[in-house]
Amino acid sequence: MTKKIITISREFGSGGRFIGEEVAQKLGIAYYDKDIIGQIAEQSGLSPKYIQENAELSPKKGMFAYAFTGRDITGKSIEDIVYEAQRKVILEIAEKESCVIIGRNADFILKSRDDVLNVFIHGNMPEKVQRICKLYNVSESDAVKMINDTDKRRRTNYNFYTDQKWGMADNYTLSLNSSQIGYPKCESIIMQCI
Amino acid sequence: MTKKIITISREFGSGGRFIGEEVAQKLGIAYYDKDIIGQIAEQSGLSPKYIQENAELSPKKGMFAYAFTGRDITGKSIEDIVYEAQRKVILEIAEKESCVIIGRNADFILKSRDDVLNVFIHGNMPEKVQRICKLYNVSESDAVKMINDTDKRRRTNYNFYTDQKWGMADNYTLSLNSSQIGYPKCESIIMQCI
Repeated sequence: MTKKIITISREFGSGGRFIGEEVAQKLGIAYYDKDIIGQIAEQSGLSPKYIQENAELSPKKGMFAYAFTGRDITGKSIEDIVYEAQRKVILEIAEKESCVIIGRNADFILKSRDDVLNVFIHGNMPEKVQRICKLYNVSESDAVKMINDTDKRRRTNYNFYTDQKWGMADNYTLSLNSSQIGYPKCESIIMQCI
Repeated sequence: MTKKIITISREFGSGGRFIGEEVAQKLGIAYYDKDIIGQIAEQSGLSPKYIQENAELSPKKGMFAYAFTGRDITGKSIEDIVYEAQRKVILEIAEKESCVIIGRNADFILKSRDDVLNVFIHGNMPEKVQRICKLYNVSESDAVKMINDTDKRRRTNYNFYTDQKWGMADNYTLSLNSSQIGYPKCESIIMQCI
């Protein structure tokens, strides 16, 4: 089957976003990452700032609290509203054009399509820490904290809204360790698979 | 770093063994799968038939029983003896030559080396069922049972003897869905990474 949509899930600091951007550019297709936020905001009626800070990430309180707090009388939490808006936007984008979509559970949201290549980019801790130190100008210990915290929130969000476990190879067509393989080879392997 | 050893973990029916054999042949390096059994038998003092039926697979009784039954006064079960023999054989092989090693938790056993490419091959259920029906001349429902049973036993054995979760992308350099990517492309991607 021909793949026209590439979803990239990634560990924080693994370079997944960078790799996705490069692939989109090389293939001359659309790239959706932060640019999706405005559309989700419009769909949900929430502010772009709120979406940026909360979509894709669970609140810091963790899975159990996540599931049971902040729900209105209809049983919908504000996270559910964001997720539903995000789901609609991703389905519309996939219908419209070939593209790379970063994160936001797009692999699961587009599960019923057969033209999607799902990629998971992960890496070794030392390389991820180095990257985060450089990108955000933080200390090593702060970088470790950012990595653990962000990945925990991504994992909680993913596991809550899908019936899958974040980071299980089975969810993805391809999973690549960018620290061991290197970014250019990751890009080339992804492009060979579409 | 240069990789000289390729470990291939795989879901039953995903063609991981076949892909590993092809890669070894194309690279002109050694291939270890069933041939390892004689060496494990020699190391452990158990019969090759017993090793073939039990190494890599947990007993059918499942994880909990696995951990607590059949242990002698030293706390070692027969599975522990097999595992220890298997570990020694795999460490020796890796020391000796470039090779492909199928299964047997080799990714974890060789974790301290930096010349190992760890691959996980998985696939879609319909394709795996088709392959098992053809290879073992069984019905579709029997194939499903064989797949679920074998993978459950592999998972239990892996999770028990390593501190990792079988099938998590993070354990492997590369994880590939052979049903979506196709066997020849899986082989080519593996060879590009060494």
